[in-house]
Amino acid sequence: MTMDQGEPGNAGRRQFLQSAVAAGVGGYLMSQSAGAQTAPKPIPPGTLGAAGAGPDRPKIAMLVHPKMVMQDLIGPMTVFNLMRCEIHLVWKTREPVMTELGITVAPTTTFAECPEVVDVLFVPGGLDGTIALMDDAEVLKFLADRGKTARYITSDCTGSLLLGAAGLLQGYKATSHWMVRDELALMGAIPVHDRVVQDRNRITGGGVTAGIDFGLTLAALLRSREEAETIQLVIEYAPAPPFDAGTPETAPKAIVDRLMSRRGPTVEQARQKAQRAGRALKR
Amino acid sequence: MTMDQGEPGNAGRRQFLQSAVAAGVGGYLMSQSAGAQTAPKPIPPGTLGAAGAGPDRPKIAMLVHPKMVMQDLIGPMTVFNLMRCEIHLVWKTREPVMTELGITVAPTTTFAECPEVVDVLFVPGGLDGTIALMDDAEVLKFLADRGKTARYITSDCTGSLLLGAAGLLQGYKATSHWMVRDELALMGAIPVHDRVVQDRNRITGGGVTAGIDFGLTLAALLRSREEAETIQLVIEYAPAPPFDAGTPETAPKAIVDRLMSRRGPTVEQARQKAQRAGRALKR
Repeated sequence: MTMDQGEPGNAGRRQFLQSAVAAGVGGYLMSQSAGAQTAPKPIPPGTLGAAGAGPDRPKIAMLVHPKMVMQDLIGPMTVFNLMRCEIHLVWKTREPVMTELGITVAPTTTFAECPEVVDVLFVPGGLDGTIALMDDAEVLKFLADRGKTARYITSDCTGSLLLGAAGLLQGYKATSHWMVRDELALMGAIPVHDRVVQDRNRITGGGVTAGIDFGLTLAALLRSREEAETIQLVIEYAPAPPFDAGTPETAPKAIVDRLMSRRGPTVEQARQKAQRAGRALKR
Repeated sequence: MTMDQGEPGNAGRRQFLQSAVAAGVGGYLMSQSAGAQTAPKPIPPGTLGAAGAGPDRPKIAMLVHPKMVMQDLIGPMTVFNLMRCEIHLVWKTREPVMTELGITVAPTTTFAECPEVVDVLFVPGGLDGTIALMDDAEVLKFLADRGKTARYITSDCTGSLLLGAAGLLQGYKATSHWMVRDELALMGAIPVHDRVVQDRNRITGGGVTAGIDFGLTLAALLRSREEAETIQLVIEYAPAPPFDAGTPETAPKAIVDRLMSRRGPTVEQARQKAQRAGRALKR
């Protein structure tokens, strides 16, 4: 876990201030809900997301955590940003967290500062990073608490391991990265092999890149199919993978086997932590 | 354009140092080229990318710029990181640049510090941000210079507008975000409507999300199809868009028309700058 040792708090706050400024001016291929001519509105303190919001501005709490996989956050966040959502990047402190890419992300909002009721609670993945938090009382308490009132409880990739450990998936169908999907059952969830799985107000995405499909799915639920399609057109989401190796079912067996043997120990870690979390939930 | 006014240089450098540290420990679903047990190697100063690289470690120079669209950078960078590439986030200075999401990215390498010869020169998009740089002499000079020796000259989304303005696409087939693809012709390129377009050593991706398809295409060229397929499996890239609105050809006409009328003035700006750039290239 990396922090801005130099000056606790300040870097995060300074970056958050820059963010608020830029969010007001960050011109970009526009979403349906704002026009190029719209004068940017001020951003509520502690939030990101482009300005010029309409009356309906969903509150999104996105957990950020050390070793988070950047794509897990950015895929859905790109969609939420185009929807002019009120986006909170939430963590224990405002200290920047280091992602797997070596790029830091500054939280905008601490657990304590996060709105009591959010429209969307979202947890990104990153296998090692999420495993490390599966028994972090402070993180699980925050997720369980906001999960009581959130309109949608969501995740991408291995983020569902944290939702599960927080007791938010018991009796719900859910998915995760293919490597650890089955471990969800140890925490009372019903693992489903699908790109995006919705069961009542729980919506979970598959591995890493599924976050884009998840984001567009949620955009249609929060706003409208028309807005989701507008965003899909803006981000030109007409994927054309050069190969067909995106799932263990379609990838060459030798590649799947090599990957599993390399990550076997980590997957076993996830299994053991899921087992402990499952036991704790039964108490 | 936003900078860390607080203390020029320091924030960027500090963040870069954190990055180098984390890059060495950023455990994640592993790529083929490194095993979970591999002891992380130190990262060369001024670079990102996970450690534990094999002998063949491609040098990638990725331009970062204000109002850059984060997904344009993160899609390909996620792939390059799993390939254990030596990744340089290059800009005029080390001051963090603000992306459209309100998240800042700290350059790791200035134009002056960038290796003379790179394997890949990459430019991400962000319509307003790239238009603003189409007549920025310092940026165009850097791109034209490294473009002389780069093994591959590449872009995602509207990044190709900058490659074009730098004179790197004259006589080459290329693509861009669908809104401005045709403007490439004004700078001597041959616009092609495809997800990823390769013409000799020029490889350009379509809008925003095409960066993932581009990254996997390049991974196969730089390493092997097997490595590209391994990465595709790691990031579970088996896309399943909930709607079919990813291109103007498939999206509802009303949505395309509304978007074009909203962004019309900006697209016109791009056309005029492309025209001027084209004239300058003829001199």
